[in-house]
Amino acid sequence: MPRYIFTLRCEDRAGIVLAIARAIGEVGGNIVESAQFSDPPTGLFCMRVSFDSSIEFPAVDGALRASSAPFGALVGVRPESRLRRTLVMVSKLDHCLADLLYRWKIGELPVEIPVVVSNHGDCAPLVESYDVPFVHVPVTPSTKGRAERALRELVAEHEVDFIVLARYMQVLSPEFFESMPDSIINIHHSFLPGFKGARPYHQAYERGVKIIGATAHYVTADLDEGPIIEQSVNRVSHAQSASDLVAIGRDIERTVLARAVRLQAEDRVVLAGNRTIVFSP
Amino acid sequence: MPRYIFTLRCEDRAGIVLAIARAIGEVGGNIVESAQFSDPPTGLFCMRVSFDSSIEFPAVDGALRASSAPFGALVGVRPESRLRRTLVMVSKLDHCLADLLYRWKIGELPVEIPVVVSNHGDCAPLVESYDVPFVHVPVTPSTKGRAERALRELVAEHEVDFIVLARYMQVLSPEFFESMPDSIINIHHSFLPGFKGARPYHQAYERGVKIIGATAHYVTADLDEGPIIEQSVNRVSHAQSASDLVAIGRDIERTVLARAVRLQAEDRVVLAGNRTIVFSP
Amino acid sequence: MPRYIFTLRCEDRAGIVLAIARAIGEVGGNIVESAQFSDPPTGLFCMRVSFDSSIEFPAVDGALRASSAPFGALVGVRPESRLRRTLVMVSKLDHCLADLLYRWKIGELPVEIPVVVSNHGDCAPLVESYDVPFVHVPVTPSTKGRAERALRELVAEHEVDFIVLARYMQVLSPEFFESMPDSIINIHHSFLPGFKGARPYHQAYERGVKIIGATAHYVTADLDEGPIIEQSVNRVSHAQSASDLVAIGRDIERTVLARAVRLQAEDRVVLAGNRTIVFSP
Amino acid sequence: MPRYIFTLRCEDRAGIVLAIARAIGEVGGNIVESAQFSDPPTGLFCMRVSFDSSIEFPAVDGALRASSAPFGALVGVRPESRLRRTLVMVSKLDHCLADLLYRWKIGELPVEIPVVVSNHGDCAPLVESYDVPFVHVPVTPSTKGRAERALRELVAEHEVDFIVLARYMQVLSPEFFESMPDSIINIHHSFLPGFKGARPYHQAYERGVKIIGATAHYVTADLDEGPIIEQSVNRVSHAQSASDLVAIGRDIERTVLARAVRLQAEDRVVLAGNRTIVFSP
Repeated sequence: MPRYIFTLRCEDRAGIVLAIARAIGEVGGNIVESAQFSDPPTGLFCMRVSFDSSIEFPAVDGALRASSAPFGALVGVRPESRLRRTLVMVSKLDHCLADLLYRWKIGELPVEIPVVVSNHGDCAPLVESYDVPFVHVPVTPSTKGRAERALRELVAEHEVDFIVLARYMQVLSPEFFESMPDSIINIHHSFLPGFKGARPYHQAYERGVKIIGATAHYVTADLDEGPIIEQSVNRVSHAQSASDLVAIGRDIERTVLARAVRLQAEDRVVLAGNRTIVFSP
Repeated sequence: MPRYIFTLRCEDRAGIVLAIARAIGEVGGNIVESAQFSDPPTGLFCMRVSFDSSIEFPAVDGALRASSAPFGALVGVRPESRLRRTLVMVSKLDHCLADLLYRWKIGELPVEIPVVVSNHGDCAPLVESYDVPFVHVPVTPSTKGRAERALRELVAEHEVDFIVLARYMQVLSPEFFESMPDSIINIHHSFLPGFKGARPYHQAYERGVKIIGATAHYVTADLDEGPIIEQSVNRVSHAQSASDLVAIGRDIERTVLARAVRLQAEDRVVLAGNRTIVFSP
Repeated sequence: MPRYIFTLRCEDRAGIVLAIARAIGEVGGNIVESAQFSDPPTGLFCMRVSFDSSIEFPAVDGALRASSAPFGALVGVRPESRLRRTLVMVSKLDHCLADLLYRWKIGELPVEIPVVVSNHGDCAPLVESYDVPFVHVPVTPSTKGRAERALRELVAEHEVDFIVLARYMQVLSPEFFESMPDSIINIHHSFLPGFKGARPYHQAYERGVKIIGATAHYVTADLDEGPIIEQSVNRVSHAQSASDLVAIGRDIERTVLARAVRLQAEDRVVLAGNRTIVFSP
Repeated sequence: MPRYIFTLRCEDRAGIVLAIARAIGEVGGNIVESAQFSDPPTGLFCMRVSFDSSIEFPAVDGALRASSAPFGALVGVRPESRLRRTLVMVSKLDHCLADLLYRWKIGELPVEIPVVVSNHGDCAPLVESYDVPFVHVPVTPSTKGRAERALRELVAEHEVDFIVLARYMQVLSPEFFESMPDSIINIHHSFLPGFKGARPYHQAYERGVKIIGATAHYVTADLDEGPIIEQSVNRVSHAQSASDLVAIGRDIERTVLARAVRLQAEDRVVLAGNRTIVFSP
């Protein structure tokens, strides 16, 4: 029996849950997991349900969309087996990329990775060892516009659902990321909002913090201010140099990014203003 | 507008969620938080919903019970303002008791504490400084039966919903705890299933573990084998003696027990065989 | 056999360790714990040794000071049994104070607490229940100078070694805290450097972080920029309101502050520029 | 100026520290990091010092050995640049192996890996992609003796300092691991002493624990009872199946094993009875 994932977001109004429960009942759905949340600051209601049903996709999709329509809701319906398509971008540091590819290979990340894009050629052998196409899109001040057009074409060609910046060190244009809201995930190598900007581990060393971290967030116009999806931290001591922090940080970064990608791939992240609602499993 | 908490557990069957959503709709309920789970090993379905409704309690209660009846479900309905009544038991070590009382006083624990019972008199001043009645029920091999009768009377007299063993060092009889299944919470000072039995921190020291912990669990006939509600841990090193571990453990114990009591007080814990389903906030 | 604690800090130079090892040998000392560190950014060398010796204090003190003198070192020598004297300050929120007093009573904090000072009267009963003198020193814009003179007198009268601001909501004057460098510990209710200033949990809620924390630090002229002694964190979710964060934060604050106080009480914290070196046990 | 690592263990006696400090002084050594510990249950004293000296290795080695001899100490002296040689063993699950190889390649693990050995051929391509020789040593009941002889020959041929069992699913003979005490590290996929034996994640699921973990330990005759080097844990919930725990566990295992290997590679682990003393950086 196929499993479906249904997501919904709209202004909070009475009757939504009942309408959806009824629609799922109509298609003979057996609910496997269900979560919902009303966000006080935004007045947003959101919901995620996974259910099993022997009815085919178009009928399931139709029933749920019809039930949601009166509430003016944004909805998503898909068979769980139709995986999200993810484009990964990287520059030279490959620890996050290597980790994502490995997890993907052993079945931990339910995504398809049609292509990896880099402004450098260094990661080509790694990517190709996983039989994933690697595209080198150089970026210089004069080719920036051309590079972004190439990226757009790759997104269109590969029907990309979301982009992961796995230590991609170039800034995308507002036009670009505004065309894909809540669909571009970046890993920042600090526990935001501390240590924005460059060389955060060196900043952390100089400030003498006893814990460092990393943050996966959606990309927005305000650099390092995007909505946070996931964070994690680790203890450090005075005896660890800035480059020790860089090494410890690699572990945090790759774990945090992998978790964020998985949450996104499973439609568990909802953007609510500048915050995220995360329906953790 | 009063808030209600509804809990349900029954064999998993189609239509439950819809039936409940319909009943909540009928009483004009606005869902604030909702969680549900189907437990694979036991086939149990359970659900917890909190909702606001301007309808009075008997009508709300009636509607939800009527909807649940066809499913043979065990249900609970109460206004959130009707607090769970908690009897706390302690022997001599008072760190868990002191912590519970302090949290209760500042409003962190949504319970009423009608009485604290001890087999020693040491904690009387502490308990009475919080204006909570303290009852000394001595336990010796020959008075064990009498002590348990006294305890039963206190449970009845104070309409106790659940009991917390906050480092109570006497074993209750099977008759007693079987009369209150999933209603007696104990704190064990190890990360179960490691280090069952006596002097767990000394066992941990001797085994040379690098992390120690504590476990809050329901009391069952198998000592230290009851269903686990909550656990937490802390790193230790070779340089810490067994008595250092005892001190570190105190912090873990009181935190874990307070969390378990709060989960229980908010009807978030469901017993499923020898495991618990915890609807965390 | 009495135990001694020796601490030293000076510019890093060859021969210090040997000189100290020789002096400890001369007084028949048996080293129990020893730690040392050379701090790259400041060029500071520091050391902490605890050792047992049957020789009396003046002779031990003399031998160690004589050996350290050629290196221009700042040294401290004391019998471990001569406890650090700690003045605690509080305003109205008492969770950190209550925790410190409880730990002190059960022997977890090796300090003497000769007096607790507050700008409000609310905590008097709590403090007096521990048989500790409570002094109410009101602070208004016009009495600020007088209040600080009163505080200085209390510090002198009670031979205070260090001050703990256990949620004390008044700013001390630079003259005051510069007279006690690395001797005034504050608890800030955020994971610094994130969320400086007022209402940090509300800031954290609005920013949508997934982890919150607290920071114990020395007080300096730059508010919330003082050298960090200890930090800890806890995961939170979108479902937790700002006041939930406040409650979770209380646990973090009291744990972090207690750890910092204990480290300070055991002479384990060394100030190195704007960072601290912490010789953890 | 070359850096040296010195380690010592012996019965605790007066004068050791002074003797070593004097010897380091004699070779013009500048101490970078120093740690020592007297273990109460075993009466063992142990020490690890790293220092810079312009004197050549044989003279440094001679001076330190001469100073340690009167104490009957076991000592180790080596230039830090002379890396420990590590033989890694694996069966089919490659997450720990892949992680070790990646860390080694980017310079996080200060070891040489002359050879990887497996009783299956599956990991050959992975290993060879790092230009590390892969040797397939099949193990069947009838070839067990022959396999262990082959292993001994590889250890001798490659001058192996220690062996890492990175999810190697065969039991070594007592003769083998007793010939290399404190030199064979295994990763067990549970938080020992909980869930010894087979399928620990399934045991953990059935017991309903709220936290799972992994343990790196030295191999001894008692399976899963060897001295613990490092442990780590992660929270889980009722909603996670046994195979979810397996996936979460992979992250814990590889992190714990990498830490243990690094500690061993840096001579930071001392065996003391059935416990370890770990001089963490």
